[in-house]
This record gives sequence, C-alpha cells and structure tokens, in this order.
Amino acid sequence: MPTQICLKERPAGLPSESTWLMTHAEQRAPNAGEIAVNVEYISVDPAMRGWISPGHNYMDPVAVGEVMAAAGVGRVHESASDAFAVGDYVTGNTGVQTHCTRSADAFQKITPGDWPLTTFVGGFGLAGMAAYFGLLRVAALESGETVVISGAAGAVGSIVGQIAKIRGCRVIGIAGGAAKCDLLINTFGFDAAIDYHSVSVPYALKTHCPDAIDVFFDNVGGETLEAALNQLAFGGRVVLCGAISQYNSSSHGDGPRNYMQLLMRRARMEGFVATDYAESFPEAVLDLAVWHRAGRLVFKEHIVEGLASFPSALNMLFSGENLGKLIIRV
Amino acid sequence: MPTQICLKERPAGLPSESTWLMTHAEQRAPNAGEIAVNVEYISVDPAMRGWISPGHNYMDPVAVGEVMAAAGVGRVHESASDAFAVGDYVTGNTGVQTHCTRSADAFQKITPGDWPLTTFVGGFGLAGMAAYFGLLRVAALESGETVVISGAAGAVGSIVGQIAKIRGCRVIGIAGGAAKCDLLINTFGFDAAIDYHSVSVPYALKTHCPDAIDVFFDNVGGETLEAALNQLAFGGRVVLCGAISQYNSSSHGDGPRNYMQLLMRRARMEGFVATDYAESFPEAVLDLAVWHRAGRLVFKEHIVEGLASFPSALNMLFSGENLGKLIIRV
Repeated sequence: MPTQICLKERPAGLPSESTWLMTHAEQRAPNAGEIAVNVEYISVDPAMRGWISPGHNYMDPVAVGEVMAAAGVGRVHESASDAFAVGDYVTGNTGVQTHCTRSADAFQKITPGDWPLTTFVGGFGLAGMAAYFGLLRVAALESGETVVISGAAGAVGSIVGQIAKIRGCRVIGIAGGAAKCDLLINTFGFDAAIDYHSVSVPYALKTHCPDAIDVFFDNVGGETLEAALNQLAFGGRVVLCGAISQYNSSSHGDGPRNYMQLLMRRARMEGFVATDYAESFPEAVLDLAVWHRAGRLVFKEHIVEGLASFPSALNMLFSGENLGKLIIRV
Repeated sequence: MPTQICLKERPAGLPSESTWLMTHAEQRAPNAGEIAVNVEYISVDPAMRGWISPGHNYMDPVAVGEVMAAAGVGRVHESASDAFAVGDYVTGNTGVQTHCTRSADAFQKITPGDWPLTTFVGGFGLAGMAAYFGLLRVAALESGETVVISGAAGAVGSIVGQIAKIRGCRVIGIAGGAAKCDLLINTFGFDAAIDYHSVSVPYALKTHCPDAIDVFFDNVGGETLEAALNQLAFGGRVVLCGAISQYNSSSHGDGPRNYMQLLMRRARMEGFVATDYAESFPEAVLDLAVWHRAGRLVFKEHIVEGLASFPSALNMLFSGENLGKLIIRV
C-alpha cells in the first residue's frame, strides 16, 4: 500500500513524533501531463527544518496536512506525458512517500549508467550542487586560498572540502567528534580537522589560520560563524549555506555580534540557494563525475532503511549522528 | 601657541571629558622629508570612535598619550621636502591639532581654486569617497534600483542618496527628527524620508519598499539593519559603512539576528574602507565636482569653531545633533 509522511503540526523546536503523520492512500493514475513514480531513494536535508517553519522562506512552506517535501529518485511506472516513458529513472521533488503522481515538469530524467541511484540525490543532487556553486561561484574560490568549512563531514561540507583540495587550496574542516574528524583527514583528504566537541573553535582557528581564512563556508552559524569572522582574511568571503545550530531555536536566533569584522576585513557574507543555478547543473555534474572517476572525490553516503525512519533520520542531522549524505532507501 | 588634543584614556562607552587632554607644545621644525603645516580645518567622523578602541581595527588604534588622529586640511608653512613648497595647501592625517610636522608622504597637495577648503575634508574628503565607492563599487548600483540609507542626513549618507538620485534610483533615507527628514526631501531630493524618532522603521520600510530594497547602505547597524534585511530584494546588497548605534556599546554589541535573510534573498553584505580606493580618488572627485557645479549635488557642512570644541563635537555625532558633514574650523 502506498505510504506517505505528512506534516501533522509545525514544531516549535526540534521536530518530534507529533510533528509527523504516516498515512496510506492509493496512488492515483496520472492525468494528462503527469507521471506516476515509484520512489526508490529520498534525500534527508537540514533545509527541511526551514520548509516546515511558517513565514518567509526561499520556497513556500509545506502546509500542515500535506506530504512532506523531499528530493527523491525513482522510476516511472505510468506516464501520461510525452517526456517520460515507463521505466525511465527520474529525480525531482517526490516528497516523503513511496509513490508519487505529479506533473512531469517537476522531474528530470536521469541515465544512471553504472552510477548508484543514490548518487542522484547525493553528489549529483542538491548537496553536490550547493557545494559546487557555493564554492566556485558564490565564493569565487581561487587556487592557493585557505578554506574553512563548518559542518564539514556533512553532505555539502565534505564535497566543498574535496573540491577545494582539487583546486589547490588549504582546507580545514570543523566537525563534531573524532570519527568525523578522522573521516575529514583520512577519507576526504582535508589538511586539518577541528573537533568542536573537544577543542575551542576560536582558539583552533587562530592556530590553524591566523587572520587568514579566505573562504568560510558556513553550514552551522552561531558561535562558529563568529569565530570564523574574527579570523577572516582581507577580502575574505563567508558563504552562507546553512545555519544548523539555529534551525531549532525557538527564540529569534543569534546574529553574528562581530559582523562589523566584514568592514575591518573588507569582506563579504553572501547567501545562496543551489536551485538558482539549475541551468548550470549539467556542467557541475560533469566536473564532479570526472573527479569521482579519477578517484579524487568521494561521495560518502549514510543510508537508512524504510520510509518510516524519516522522523528519526531527520533528527540525526541535528544531533550530528550521520556520517555523510543522509539518504532513505524507500 | 600650538595646541593638541591627545587621547588621555580609552573610554568604556561614550567618550567624555576624561577621555581627552588638551596640551600645548612648540611645533618642531621639519626634518628632511617632512613638512610643517598650519591646520585650518579638521574632519570629525564617527569612525574616530573605533580609532580609540583597543583591539583589531582597520588601522592601528591611537595610542594613549598620542595626538588624536584626524583628516585635516591646512597650509604648508615650512618644508624640508621637494614635493611641497611653503604656501601649498595639503590634506592628510593632520591629527586634532593646530600645527603638525610630519613626513611629506602623509599628505596630498590640493588646488582649492574657488572651492572652499572645507570641501576637501567633506565632499572631496573621505565622506565623499566612502559614499562614491561604497555605492558605485561595493554595491555596484544599477539605474532604477531602490536604495535605502541609514544615517541618511550625515556626511556620507547625504552624498550616497544624491548620487543614487543622479543615477536614476529611488532613494529612501532614515534619519532622526523632522529637521533632518526635511533636509533629505527638500535639500537632497530624496524620494522619501523615515523619521525613526516618530515612526517604526520596520513598518515604514515595509510600506515604502515591500521586499524591494536593492541596496541598503548602512551607517547605523542594530535594529535598523535587521529591519532592512527583512525587506531586502532578491540579489540585494547591504553595504557596511558604519554601525554608529553600536560604537559606544560597552557590551559585545548586537549582531543582525536575521542574517540568514541573506540566504533567503540570495543577498550579500559587504564591508569596505574608503581609503582602499585611494588610487581612484581623482576620478571620484572629478565626478562629484561636475555634479556639484551642475547643481545636482549639495555638500551640506556643519562647522563648529575652535580646536577646543573637538570633544563635544565628536559626541554630537552620537547624539545626532549635527546636520551634514561635521567640521572644526581650527
């Protein structure tokens, strides 16, 4: 029986059991221009916390009672669109559900070849795209620069650091715990790792890059962002990709009290959303694929089983339990 | 007798009488490569508050016991440098004093022609340069955009708004009190003025520019900055020129709690220091002079008399008493 996970009520802080409702409903047949998809993998992303908050966001929030939004990958099992045939693989906003019937416009066709399907919601998905365009377009990274990444062992951070290494940069990652820091050094090839569970981030940044962070790629916000602003180089760039330390705050959240370091350092802080670069996704995927084939880029995936695990999987992102891109096998 | 105003002790909050010491000392004759200058006008700037704070700033802080730094204009009365003759007019960091003997490298020669000398510490000084380069280079202003300026009746803000009008933009200024707002509309030609003494800035910004601030030129910081971030357009730019609401805070100061609007709006916040553009100052002065001659640009000056007025003049900036560029006639 097709299964869906719907938003039951908006959470005040961390999402809990009462946030979600699992439902079962027959999948309807596609109308003209639609396709019906069997969903195989779903991407679990920190940004989802924003999608279930009220108020102005970069997309309309998920309505209470609606199926939770999610990037997914699956296979067409019924088509009423000329663009897709039964058996085609597609990616798009499938939602957190086993089956989905939506307008064909909402999907892109993919040709997996010998790539695992998970790659299309991981390295070739929005995480990879955020890493690629955030680093190369928003930060306009140059060879030889020093790059610091918060949330460095996560889906985006791990790819950011590896691209920066490929581009000839010095890369320092901030992550929580020895296992993640080991991953940064030994799997992703970072130059240094700062374990925020065991050392002071401001002190460690001073040691690793005194006045010399050219690019700070931020997934975390809060005190981590403040520490990085204090060590920015002249002409430094802070790329705002996320602020996971703030997402479940029920207060207004904290702003970087030392933001005027941007003036002292003639620096800029800039936000972006990966989907803005959709027209250029093919070139990014090509670069990432070439680097991956050459053994220079690892896509670390953390796969959990079953749609029902979605509520606990999402919260793993906030407790920091996942290692790499978090994906649900439906 | 030559007179100097020296930093006696670093203030914790607002500078007070105990911050400053007036001294008298003979002016020494210039050594080789130096010139002696009779100072005629001194620029009084909000940035001075930062120059007397300890810690990392965009220049070395003024040391306790030293003559207070200041941009000034004066006339050479003794020269031991081939670059300047007695009688030449010069600008540079003269300090807050009646006479100054320093390396000729620290000065630029000016040719006043029929411009009042005050213009060289006002419109053609750092205030004009900050307005010009902050708006045209840092914000990369485009014709037809909506520009909001905080501290709009001040030295920098008033020129920013007028340049934006010349460039075909819609300009809204935020200032404190009816007299300043009248000045914005009737002297500087702004499209709208928001008096933060009498209306809610967030509400007024929503009314004047719903989701449509392309450029926010910030001299104030604090809640004014937060209000502007909430109304930024997609692709908006926040230019950090100052944060006068924060300079005398004895706490760490407030950061913009809603800085992640920079992500929602794909916007950037960037700081700059006018002196970084020193090589391009001549082109800026030329543009400003042409606009001024054509009657399209007013340099509003607020001149106070006598070096001894420096401590009270500086505090006028923080209480908002000045109308236009604050200058001391020595």
